[in-house]
Amino acid sequence: MEKAECPVARALDVIGDWWTLLIVRDAFDGISRFGEFQRNLGISKGILAARLKALEEADILRSEKPKDGGAHSDYVLTEKGRGLFAVVVGLRQWGEAHCFNPGEAHSVLVEKASGQPVAPLILRNAEGRPVDASSTEVRKVGA
Amino acid sequence: MEKAECPVARALDVIGDWWTLLIVRDAFDGISRFGEFQRNLGISKGILAARLKALEEADILRSEKPKDGGAHSDYVLTEKGRGLFAVVVGLRQWGEAHCFNPGEAHSVLVEKASGQPVAPLILRNAEGRPVDASSTEVRKVGA
Repeated sequence: MEKAECPVARALDVIGDWWTLLIVRDAFDGISRFGEFQRNLGISKGILAARLKALEEADILRSEKPKDGGAHSDYVLTEKGRGLFAVVVGLRQWGEAHCFNPGEAHSVLVEKASGQPVAPLILRNAEGRPVDASSTEVRKVGA
Repeated sequence: MEKAECPVARALDVIGDWWTLLIVRDAFDGISRFGEFQRNLGISKGILAARLKALEEADILRSEKPKDGGAHSDYVLTEKGRGLFAVVVGLRQWGEAHCFNPGEAHSVLVEKASGQPVAPLILRNAEGRPVDASSTEVRKVGA
């Protein structure tokens, strides 16, 4: 595929993989070690190693020597990786709304200080008023 | 994989596919016909047909008889499908910020009424104050 001018397509080219976004989710939850990712994801060592390598090459994760002086590597989100927070939260909120039966238990994202669930993500215009798909449009390059 | 209690994992189970999200993106842009999706995505008929069928089965798209009385089907987003707007916009904004070289042209999401680009998606707490990954945490089921 040629390099798209659409940022959605470019973004998916980098992270459009089930495991990739689940690894990023786990990194947001504070997981940093190979064995922890593996246990949490139930993923083979080979697939996990390949995905971690790809995430390092894409500058989404970086590996660091741990502060405790251990021999393993810690994988932590870069600034580019932390920029995926809204994507992971958007997937979470859509999953909460549409992928569970009524009353079925699911994890919840809460503000640490208050313990209260966060508000739904709302897109806003330059003045801060809510907008949606019907009140916005994509302006193509050159248009 | 067993049914996850994490809404991110459930959501990716439904839409964790490159083509799936690009089809949804095109539907937000007003594309509704098989041939239009095919031309825009540069995708084979077989893959497109399979993805459209999966999106109908997941209640993200529904097919309708067109208003002009033609023989083809129109594919339009359901309410569940329209709920993916924040995910697509989140991917777009991350792509804009991290997947283009400085000065490289890309499409932009604008408010129709003003023609101005939309604001970056910001997650807020229950009182409307911005929160981020460091000030939030996932509360697991039973915790």
